[in-house]
Amino acid sequence: MNELISSTSNPSIKFIRKLREKKFREEQQLFFIEGVRIVGEAIARGWQINEIIISPQLINGDFATELSNTAAKHSKKITFVDQKVFKSISSKDGPKGLAAIVCQRWHSLETVNEDKGVWVAVDRIQDPGNLGTILRTIDAVQARGLILIDECTDPYDFSAVRSSMGALFSCKLIKSTQSEFSTFVKTYNNHVTGTSDSSEIDYREINYPGNLILLMGSERQGLSESLIKVCNEVVRIPMQGNSDSLNLAVATAVCLYQVYNFHHPLSEEP
Amino acid sequence: MNELISSTSNPSIKFIRKLREKKFREEQQLFFIEGVRIVGEAIARGWQINEIIISPQLINGDFATELSNTAAKHSKKITFVDQKVFKSISSKDGPKGLAAIVCQRWHSLETVNEDKGVWVAVDRIQDPGNLGTILRTIDAVQARGLILIDECTDPYDFSAVRSSMGALFSCKLIKSTQSEFSTFVKTYNNHVTGTSDSSEIDYREINYPGNLILLMGSERQGLSESLIKVCNEVVRIPMQGNSDSLNLAVATAVCLYQVYNFHHPLSEEP
Repeated sequence: MNELISSTSNPSIKFIRKLREKKFREEQQLFFIEGVRIVGEAIARGWQINEIIISPQLINGDFATELSNTAAKHSKKITFVDQKVFKSISSKDGPKGLAAIVCQRWHSLETVNEDKGVWVAVDRIQDPGNLGTILRTIDAVQARGLILIDECTDPYDFSAVRSSMGALFSCKLIKSTQSEFSTFVKTYNNHVTGTSDSSEIDYREINYPGNLILLMGSERQGLSESLIKVCNEVVRIPMQGNSDSLNLAVATAVCLYQVYNFHHPLSEEP
Repeated sequence: MNELISSTSNPSIKFIRKLREKKFREEQQLFFIEGVRIVGEAIARGWQINEIIISPQLINGDFATELSNTAAKHSKKITFVDQKVFKSISSKDGPKGLAAIVCQRWHSLETVNEDKGVWVAVDRIQDPGNLGTILRTIDAVQARGLILIDECTDPYDFSAVRSSMGALFSCKLIKSTQSEFSTFVKTYNNHVTGTSDSSEIDYREINYPGNLILLMGSERQGLSESLIKVCNEVVRIPMQGNSDSLNLAVATAVCLYQVYNFHHPLSEEP
């Protein structure tokens, strides 16, 4: 067994804490995850693990112990830390003693044409919790992945990873500027359905094609004018009450389930 | 104009900060809100305002100034504080200089029979962000309100209020134990639709009555066995992928829109 790190100022531990910063994550193309379930998902979906961090004092139960052993086999490096050190890198209230540093994985826009199906694109999404929740819904309806347009919050932010409940590892992630995205969808004639409160087309009126990009606006500003121009149609979700909008992750889910239901009508189910 | 409070240890300011604690909020039956939009909603919906807190240095723009004046008219007490003091009570990055202390408002279970329509009930919901997001969707589909069963997170928690985007003030809130809830719905024969991943009934199969309680389980444990027993039917939302569940606010919204769409078919829309 490797040596047990007991100092929170050990360079390896400082490196992990620095991964809380988006800029550092981008430079290193790495991110930090913790928890038995999430580390398990990363391994199960074949993501490249650079380092496994284990606190033997905190590992609890057969499943966690077994997973730590499995995880160790999939990692280039294994680091053992004491309880105090683990808590210094953890963002959880009750840390479970298993964490990992994972390589970021980005796809190109061309992937949309290679891996056909439903994709979601978001314009300047700001909240990591919303982003993670959208990934979770994408996984649930087996859409392909998420295109992040312009300055978005980081899907590798810890809150986004946590909200995704591990669904991050089943989704393909693409980064794009607005102009790259517009050029791409025009060139390849992708079907793009946008959403906006000011549209007059109810989201239930559309015959959604099987290959589709569902385009959602930012929490505060909705879709930009130039993105609206590349849409085949723009739909709205009906709303009553005093609300003028739904939470972004909720609106995305309501639309994604409409698309899912359109392609999986009840009569065809077993 | 009243005196301007410039000390963060002033008793009025300490009182406000103490409202961050759930227990203290419950004792006082008060809660703290901030921001022009949310304070505006509380006034517009006729909630009782105990105190308006204004930081003249931070108030910006005609709308905010006008609203502060309106707010002051609706409040028993007006407190002026300097910028530093306002920041000490604010949970926001860019505080806007307008806040309020509002009286909590709770309804009894009997309200479900008086104010007929769709209600949502949640069993032991833990996340204030989810709770606020559910209130926002309830408002969007003009459901009546939310029944909180057993130990739930507090709808008057600042994160819940913020996530609700002011929808809190349009919803009726009810607290209940599991046994009170079960007795109530059995006695009055309310229609209760539960949700569970393990149900075999697709949520699209149901003819939802106009008077309905949609019953959702907690984030971690789903619905308790004894609550499942009081349901007229238990439905599931189909899921593929590796996910075994959706985010609770997402699942609630997908079901609520199914109910909404059932009662508002496309052909009847203008």
